[in-house]
Amino acid sequence: MGKKARPGNFFENFRLNQKIRHATPRTLTEGDCSIYIALTGSRHVLHSARPVALGFGYRDRPVDDLLAFNIAFGKTVPDISLNAVANLGYADARFCAPCYPGDTLRAESEVIGLKQNSNGRSGVVWVRSSAYNQSDELVLTWARWVMVHKRDANAPAPATIIPELPDAVSVDRLSVPPFLDFSRFSPDLTGSADLWDDYAAGERIDHPCGMTVDESDHTLAARLYQNSARVHLDALAMKDSQFGQRLVYGGHVISVCRALSYDGLENALSIAAINAGSHLNPVFAGDTLYAFTEVIGKWALPGRTDLGALRLRLIGIKNRRAEGLASPGIAGGKPDPHVVLDLDYTVLMPRRGPR
Amino acid sequence: MGKKARPGNFFENFRLNQKIRHATPRTLTEGDCSIYIALTGSRHVLHSARPVALGFGYRDRPVDDLLAFNIAFGKTVPDISLNAVANLGYADARFCAPCYPGDTLRAESEVIGLKQNSNGRSGVVWVRSSAYNQSDELVLTWARWVMVHKRDANAPAPATIIPELPDAVSVDRLSVPPFLDFSRFSPDLTGSADLWDDYAAGERIDHPCGMTVDESDHTLAARLYQNSARVHLDALAMKDSQFGQRLVYGGHVISVCRALSYDGLENALSIAAINAGSHLNPVFAGDTLYAFTEVIGKWALPGRTDLGALRLRLIGIKNRRAEGLASPGIAGGKPDPHVVLDLDYTVLMPRRGPR
Amino acid sequence: MGKKARPGNFFENFRLNQKIRHATPRTLTEGDCSIYIALTGSRHVLHSARPVALGFGYRDRPVDDLLAFNIAFGKTVPDISLNAVANLGYADARFCAPCYPGDTLRAESEVIGLKQNSNGRSGVVWVRSSAYNQSDELVLTWARWVMVHKRDANAPAPATIIPELPDAVSVDRLSVPPFLDFSRFSPDLTGSADLWDDYAAGERIDHPCGMTVDESDHTLAARLYQNSARVHLDALAMKDSQFGQRLVYGGHVISVCRALSYDGLENALSIAAINAGSHLNPVFAGDTLYAFTEVIGKWALPGRTDLGALRLRLIGIKNRRAEGLASPGIAGGKPDPHVVLDLDYTVLMPRRGPR
Repeated sequence: MGKKARPGNFFENFRLNQKIRHATPRTLTEGDCSIYIALTGSRHVLHSARPVALGFGYRDRPVDDLLAFNIAFGKTVPDISLNAVANLGYADARFCAPCYPGDTLRAESEVIGLKQNSNGRSGVVWVRSSAYNQSDELVLTWARWVMVHKRDANAPAPATIIPELPDAVSVDRLSVPPFLDFSRFSPDLTGSADLWDDYAAGERIDHPCGMTVDESDHTLAARLYQNSARVHLDALAMKDSQFGQRLVYGGHVISVCRALSYDGLENALSIAAINAGSHLNPVFAGDTLYAFTEVIGKWALPGRTDLGALRLRLIGIKNRRAEGLASPGIAGGKPDPHVVLDLDYTVLMPRRGPR
Repeated sequence: MGKKARPGNFFENFRLNQKIRHATPRTLTEGDCSIYIALTGSRHVLHSARPVALGFGYRDRPVDDLLAFNIAFGKTVPDISLNAVANLGYADARFCAPCYPGDTLRAESEVIGLKQNSNGRSGVVWVRSSAYNQSDELVLTWARWVMVHKRDANAPAPATIIPELPDAVSVDRLSVPPFLDFSRFSPDLTGSADLWDDYAAGERIDHPCGMTVDESDHTLAARLYQNSARVHLDALAMKDSQFGQRLVYGGHVISVCRALSYDGLENALSIAAINAGSHLNPVFAGDTLYAFTEVIGKWALPGRTDLGALRLRLIGIKNRRAEGLASPGIAGGKPDPHVVLDLDYTVLMPRRGPR
Repeated sequence: MGKKARPGNFFENFRLNQKIRHATPRTLTEGDCSIYIALTGSRHVLHSARPVALGFGYRDRPVDDLLAFNIAFGKTVPDISLNAVANLGYADARFCAPCYPGDTLRAESEVIGLKQNSNGRSGVVWVRSSAYNQSDELVLTWARWVMVHKRDANAPAPATIIPELPDAVSVDRLSVPPFLDFSRFSPDLTGSADLWDDYAAGERIDHPCGMTVDESDHTLAARLYQNSARVHLDALAMKDSQFGQRLVYGGHVISVCRALSYDGLENALSIAAINAGSHLNPVFAGDTLYAFTEVIGKWALPGRTDLGALRLRLIGIKNRRAEGLASPGIAGGKPDPHVVLDLDYTVLMPRRGPR
């Protein structure tokens, strides 16, 4: 292999506490926001209408939370997951500051855990990744863990360190922008009068719409996010994989399911945290995605009468509708083959306040 | 069905004179303009080149008329046509003020007609929809009628009211922006020296180009317009429909046919009105669209020597070229299965003026 | 054919020294830049991150060189290559001034050579095309030659004139913007510490990534560039061609291969010239592109210690990886059927300078 070859990192290349500055900062623009809508059909009003965002105290229409996440995530791929077998999970993701068109994101990661697999041919790497804007403000941060191939099966195993990650981002760790003011919220904006007060833990919402993902949809998404992972873009290489074809980037699945969840959760205006997430089955071009949501928690926020936090579990499904499908994990055992996503996340929603 | 289910409106939910404020205002940006070009290949110079638009008196490059229309139309879908059997027609659409990048559109509709079908299972709803910008200026307004399912076949039929709609937007009702000045027009801008003076009623133009629509093309379009209608996006649901597959959104068909009509109508710079429109056959991914235009009218405009109005009939065709195909309706009976669009619209075109 | 038909130019319509002003100037925006990333996955940092561009002395993030090229090229299609049999080659392309979001490009061409083919049914037309911005600054200029059908086989043959074109843009003809300053370059920006000093003539880099091109990818690209050539967009017309299907626009192939070349050439920040280029085999939807690069020359630049020029040969391949494939032309004879692009171009790259 010539010296300009870029094989990416293998399991034995990671060291505990190693810090990695990821390449290629990226300026997000109105162009990215429009493409994001074209890719997902998102109707979330905070990211759709500038005057609405201004009315809530933002200085501009903020970039969709998941667009910022996907861009930042893409930065980490060449260093973390180019040789990944699988992206195993996310946890403790916090959205700390809004990202506006014109902002430039760069990303850094730190290795926070390592565990070689018993087969000696791969291992799990835990990283904490963070994205900063051009003013070095922390915009978002998340932990994820991936299974990565070893290049040299004889490379020695590192000490096993499994990081402690919280089950959920606790309410005191949620970032609520100090300027944020949902008191001007009007149901006319979103078409729904269901506010924070109207949701109850245990409630389930079957979102009515479905969306078929075609080949160009998910590859445009991966490329927009400068995510160069072969599994999403190189059909010839994937022909010889266990899947026989390209895999849809998991972040696109999250984005589509979040967009599908609009009907029934119209006022889940902003994402504050992703508590946990995993991709339970692969998605391929031609699959039609549906989603349902379970409300799993509900918090008033200290000092806030205009908004509250809802903890939601968004279940993404392929090739069947949500109605009648049990939540994964409840029956135990292998997940239903239709379930593709299990995302536990926290949103900010307007509330009626004390009246 | 849980209380957060969003079934959309059925025929029996509409009341005469009912007013509906549609959700999710949308800021249009340069990003949308670029995607519109990528989706349609549009070369209309007013929407392609900012300095040209400034030279005509605009304060910026205006958003393509049909992009604004499609965005505004998308706003109305969740309330009007989520349960539509078919989009039957448009009439009396007027483009009243330019829409610029940065402008935010919101939409309202009023029910102006109702007629239950004799089978008692569906009915036709006529609405007048209007889009306003962030300054509450009327940007565009149109009437359309759709056939909508009843949810409850036993719901009583409303009184039949069929609104009177004009055959065409008459010349005195055309909005010509007061600042607009085509006197600086140069044929170099568009590659054609054919001006208003050079077109004659009865003339037919077979546009030479064709454009194949692929699955991601039309779904990117529908999503960009935040049009959540199942028929365009959900292949699984459509598998069981009479079509067996997703339908291309009719507004995308209009946009593509208008773009194809560039060759031969290069100087049809701006759309002032859509007099009438209907989709005669469905379009599916893989279909190749062609178009021809008939000039059906020609008006000088009071006090204007720099421009005139042409009334055009744009016929969209699939899977055969325009040459030799008769206009729909002339032979009577069912439309030719190749004809997909019959759009009667009015454009503003530079004229030589009195010399 | 009616008088509004637009048949395009045939071989007999071109005259030596003929000057053509191409229609439809085009304003490039942030929207175009984002779509370009979505189409190609480009990670070149100068076009990805505004603060990085400002740090190098640009007044904004410049539009990708090849995006500007493709847009300018698209302008020339209706006049030059609508009736082209084949796009035979490019030479002597120089990128003279940066193009920024908001700039408007227009294009002009001059016929610089003509040669009728011996079969009397077609001929080769050489043109020099140039793109100017709204201030009439020359942004880029290139020569290309295309084989164009004759409409009338009996039209007389013109005198044969074959223009002299340089093998390469010599170092004294390279435009290096006077403000440009790569002294602030940091390897953190691109993930690679390989600078100009680290490349040697004769070196070969097999780029590891591959990218499959789907139907909507290349047609979105052609339409974004307002390239109306039937061969890219009209599947029905192409069904009867020798290819049986649409051809991927060659400029999209160049853009994808340049994006693939990022891994191993991360610091090839800017394109200064295209010395020669040809498309050796057609690319169709479904093909997976790979690329390798040969370093064919290396120049210090007078008075510059912060950057140098590398002359590179970018070989684009389809449906097999680069490893083990010989460069086209070395064995002589017909090119390997996998080779789709042979592009000789010159980049500016940061150097260590005298230390």
